[in-house]
Amino acid sequence: MTAAPRRLESYLCGHWMAGQAEGQTLLDAATGAPVAMIDSTGLDFAGALDYGRRVAGPRLRAMSFHDRAGMLKALGLKLMEWKEEFYTESFRTGATRADGWIDIEGGIGTMLTFASKGRRELPNTRVLTDGEVEVLSKDGSFVAQHILSPLTGVAVHINAFNFPIWGMLEKIAPTLLAGVPCIVKPASQTAYLTELMVRRIVETGILPDGALQLICGSVGDLLDHVTGQDAVTFTGSAWTGRKLKSHKGIVENSVRFTMEADSLNASILGPDAGPGTPEFDLFVKEVAREMTAKAGQKCTAIRRVIAPRAHVQALVEALRDRLGKTLPGLPGDEATRMGALASLDQRDEVRARIRDLQADAEIVAGNPDDVRVASGDATQGAFLNPVLMYCDRPFTATAVHDVEAFGPVSTVMPYDDPAEAAELAAMGKGSLVSSVFTDDPKVAEEVVLALAPFHGRVMIGNRASAKTSTGHGSPLAPLVHGGPGRAGGGEEMGGIRGVKHYMQRTAVQGSPRLLSAVTGRWIEGAPVTHDIHPFRKSLAELKIGDQLVTAKREVTLEDVEHFAHFTGDTFYAHMDEAAAKANPFFDDRVAHGYLIASFAAGLFVEPNPGPVLANYGVDNLRFLTPVYFGDTLQVRLTCKEINPRANAEHGEVRWDCQVTNQNGAVVAQYDVLTMVAKNWPAA
Amino acid sequence: MTAAPRRLESYLCGHWMAGQAEGQTLLDAATGAPVAMIDSTGLDFAGALDYGRRVAGPRLRAMSFHDRAGMLKALGLKLMEWKEEFYTESFRTGATRADGWIDIEGGIGTMLTFASKGRRELPNTRVLTDGEVEVLSKDGSFVAQHILSPLTGVAVHINAFNFPIWGMLEKIAPTLLAGVPCIVKPASQTAYLTELMVRRIVETGILPDGALQLICGSVGDLLDHVTGQDAVTFTGSAWTGRKLKSHKGIVENSVRFTMEADSLNASILGPDAGPGTPEFDLFVKEVAREMTAKAGQKCTAIRRVIAPRAHVQALVEALRDRLGKTLPGLPGDEATRMGALASLDQRDEVRARIRDLQADAEIVAGNPDDVRVASGDATQGAFLNPVLMYCDRPFTATAVHDVEAFGPVSTVMPYDDPAEAAELAAMGKGSLVSSVFTDDPKVAEEVVLALAPFHGRVMIGNRASAKTSTGHGSPLAPLVHGGPGRAGGGEEMGGIRGVKHYMQRTAVQGSPRLLSAVTGRWIEGAPVTHDIHPFRKSLAELKIGDQLVTAKREVTLEDVEHFAHFTGDTFYAHMDEAAAKANPFFDDRVAHGYLIASFAAGLFVEPNPGPVLANYGVDNLRFLTPVYFGDTLQVRLTCKEINPRANAEHGEVRWDCQVTNQNGAVVAQYDVLTMVAKNWPAA
Repeated sequence: MTAAPRRLESYLCGHWMAGQAEGQTLLDAATGAPVAMIDSTGLDFAGALDYGRRVAGPRLRAMSFHDRAGMLKALGLKLMEWKEEFYTESFRTGATRADGWIDIEGGIGTMLTFASKGRRELPNTRVLTDGEVEVLSKDGSFVAQHILSPLTGVAVHINAFNFPIWGMLEKIAPTLLAGVPCIVKPASQTAYLTELMVRRIVETGILPDGALQLICGSVGDLLDHVTGQDAVTFTGSAWTGRKLKSHKGIVENSVRFTMEADSLNASILGPDAGPGTPEFDLFVKEVAREMTAKAGQKCTAIRRVIAPRAHVQALVEALRDRLGKTLPGLPGDEATRMGALASLDQRDEVRARIRDLQADAEIVAGNPDDVRVASGDATQGAFLNPVLMYCDRPFTATAVHDVEAFGPVSTVMPYDDPAEAAELAAMGKGSLVSSVFTDDPKVAEEVVLALAPFHGRVMIGNRASAKTSTGHGSPLAPLVHGGPGRAGGGEEMGGIRGVKHYMQRTAVQGSPRLLSAVTGRWIEGAPVTHDIHPFRKSLAELKIGDQLVTAKREVTLEDVEHFAHFTGDTFYAHMDEAAAKANPFFDDRVAHGYLIASFAAGLFVEPNPGPVLANYGVDNLRFLTPVYFGDTLQVRLTCKEINPRANAEHGEVRWDCQVTNQNGAVVAQYDVLTMVAKNWPAA
Repeated sequence: MTAAPRRLESYLCGHWMAGQAEGQTLLDAATGAPVAMIDSTGLDFAGALDYGRRVAGPRLRAMSFHDRAGMLKALGLKLMEWKEEFYTESFRTGATRADGWIDIEGGIGTMLTFASKGRRELPNTRVLTDGEVEVLSKDGSFVAQHILSPLTGVAVHINAFNFPIWGMLEKIAPTLLAGVPCIVKPASQTAYLTELMVRRIVETGILPDGALQLICGSVGDLLDHVTGQDAVTFTGSAWTGRKLKSHKGIVENSVRFTMEADSLNASILGPDAGPGTPEFDLFVKEVAREMTAKAGQKCTAIRRVIAPRAHVQALVEALRDRLGKTLPGLPGDEATRMGALASLDQRDEVRARIRDLQADAEIVAGNPDDVRVASGDATQGAFLNPVLMYCDRPFTATAVHDVEAFGPVSTVMPYDDPAEAAELAAMGKGSLVSSVFTDDPKVAEEVVLALAPFHGRVMIGNRASAKTSTGHGSPLAPLVHGGPGRAGGGEEMGGIRGVKHYMQRTAVQGSPRLLSAVTGRWIEGAPVTHDIHPFRKSLAELKIGDQLVTAKREVTLEDVEHFAHFTGDTFYAHMDEAAAKANPFFDDRVAHGYLIASFAAGLFVEPNPGPVLANYGVDNLRFLTPVYFGDTLQVRLTCKEINPRANAEHGEVRWDCQVTNQNGAVVAQYDVLTMVAKNWPAA
């Protein structure tokens, strides 16, 4: 503790470097001991942007989505090996081990989830198609397809002090997966933890040079140099966020700007969830947990506790009991249940906001001015006991819906019917998350639908999900994180949605032949090749547009009767002439859809052992014209999309399958999905 | 022409009203005659916002997507009947009949496309689900689904002068389809045409009260009153757009802001498309058309003409010839090929911008200061002949990539290889649209992929699409319109994507039972009901969660052999033991996927005539576990989604179909799609 504080460095243009000034001293949140010095004066931010764009961008864009997903997975697994080092540093931020888990393992886990989604949900390409082909002319000679391509700039991520690791990883994972380099600027107060992780990331050598740069200290003139191909994200106070959003460089260049700011998240106790119900107990536990985890310094923490008037007293008593047992203490102590605020300044700030809240609400548990600790020194460490407030007239109150005390502080407020509860939640003017604890489906439906327009995430808590719920306060990689209005209007994560935030959507129009050349997917009307049976071709030989036109086969009354009795599918439309004719869709008995698909396979399959390994599925099967007895079927099978797997000797091939009748009418249209070997015979 | 100009009115809170001041006089673009007076002084804009939110919002949200689509269709068809009245008024804006077609029939057609997409691509519900169910716990007891719900505010659409009808309709169609009321503020110069159409719309009585309000004149203090549930869109100059985007009310409330601004759209002649090729001729025609249509006053017009150096001279000559034949004239004259600019001021503005461009480029055709007309008076009407410029060193030039002369003005610039062409286009710093004329798939691929990150739309022109192409300059309802950077960073239309711009995406988490109650869709793990066979239930009786668990059926060697020979599907994995065992996915011969689906139907179908009318398709079929001889199949069929049609006696029902083997392993999983009668027996 007496060692001289280390000097944090920025990592720009492939080098670690410190600013020219002495800079600010950062203190241990729980002990007040100096931890590090931070400064970025004189660093070349325009050069850093240029380096990312020029050096890293082309290398990232040359990789496929699966390549980038593999890179993130390798990095995540490596970082997980070193997690103990991050925990040790994390204690200095005031975070307990449980708090650090959210930040460190939660952050690395988020990166690994993106890696896994990238492999499972994205094709192994460089450009994504988005939505269906749009046919723009009756004869199909002019068509369009939307594509998504990576921005050619850099994403600048400006982060908050509360999650120095998760805050970085949840943003860089989707950005890198999209193929876009990042510059991360952590909040100064806890930048030493981010800096440590970036050092470890750089040491792995897994990311291309320039794909991740770090600014420890102010961003200086960086925003004067951003362009429309860059993106800027911000997590932190609304005040700073607005300043950045209105920055000349951002406004003039229409730079994508995503903001995640203050949010007075509400949690609602359902009218059915009175004392004695599992939901009441879950609610008490959740509110107390959200108030004390990370000492209440979570953007998603419950700030407003909305409960049926009849249960307010019982609720306050239960919370008072529970919170009274949670004394803050030294984060590194195993016995500690609640850590410290980020700094003494932060504690002063929280106390001031509590005074603001007192305009509308009274303190019913805890005393902000009398700190009682389980361990540590309350004059040196930024400790604060949980403070519960109560506002009896929330509809006429303003402070409780406006003022965010970013610490262990929540306000209880009563409601008289569920519509009122949702209305109170909406008085927060847009929040990141809300939750409702109920076991009644009607309450869930009414309250959630009323909450939805005002929130990026809504959680329903009940007995059935009690053990498995990740809780009110946890943003998850597959779900969107962000909220409208006061919450900043941004959207982060959400699985692959989050990757698309760093890509440009473009509608490409043209003839099928040229459009197909751009997207790498066969489109109706694009050229086709007829040579050997395409099932005889391995991925090394197969090309999009390789096509088979099969022999023809008549469908007879006997076929349908035989199929019906063989399979047991004696549905009346196939078997009963009068009933079929009475049906609005048919003029007579019709063949089974499954019979059509089965005969189609019989027509297109190549029976001999070959590179096609399996038919693993069918997509978008539509029966478009009824097949009557005596109709003749023919199949046209065209190779539409080829996706070689990065780590296997095979890949997915999607075939366009069109079944027509003797009049050329399309009877059935679908995609056949197969696994095909990369080489045949196998190399 | 001598009548006193009419006084335009705003339509707010269900009433037509004029401003308190005299206001500005609007002149006929081609004759200079006064057309109308415009003013909005003293109108209550906060009241209008409140009216939309309070009166129209709830009524629109109570309608389903299909109800709203039906409303737009009825409105579009009605407006089309009155189109001649709009054409007559449109001439005063300087627009020829061909220009008016884009605005009037293009606008109404856009509304009708949204109506049709709403019915075909959206469910008949009030809330949309977005993406797949995300399973958040291993045991499936905690899951999530994203939903989209309409914003509870108002969309304020601030539009440009060039397309007074299309500009309104392309924005209100997706907004109303989403369930959100609109306030439209047209640019003053041509507001009389918008006002006329809003009068006709109001007269139809088709829209709910308050769903469409109109401001003729300034928006006054309106933006001081917007909230995070409102949205603001802007089409017009970058200067005004930036001012609005930085407006305190918009920034502080994180109001959704979509901007579509200046754009120096480029069109590229491919290296293969020299004189004598069809693409060269198409290119000349397209550039000339884009310069003269709407007198060049289109956001999407071609401003930069990028051509192989070798072909520049031939190109300039061909364009000079063609443009020389296009004399501006009175818009109402049938012989007129090019109309007037919006006003004399606008002509002065274009002349000033041409002078700016002369810093980098020389005029090679047309003389901005010597107006020659086919009809009309060049001193009274805002006529201007097309002006073609040439910039020999475009890589060192700045004005040609920065200055937009919003009139019949384009600059030709040479390139030496295709990568350079795309680089020049990108020097526009983000445009709405770009095009490339080529018949070479390699050129199309290289140039389009390089253009994509900088554009919202890219068109490929070639001989095959010559007759059917809608052209470089036409935004289309199914395609996104908007571009990054200088173009404003916005995205409009794009089919259903454009509807979602007015909805909030929310991740809803909970137990399957409660989440299912919120979304109205059955989710794995949600409650099920077993009573009569669900195929015996009409839509009036059927509920989500109605489930059938079938009898079991063994799959034998004989079944597979029989099916193979009956259908002709003798694929080796079913027939050849050694080949099947050599396959990486199978341990032995396996049953056909189509046999499994056929047997499954045999197990779940109810043979007697009943309310289930047809199986019209299958979605997302995946074969998950191989079926070997002797395995026993069982099917679980669960009603997942019910979509009654608005205008028919039936609707779509989606069934979750899960086929398991004797070990409980899932063999196949898919959605079965059926048509089901609303009543049975039919009422």
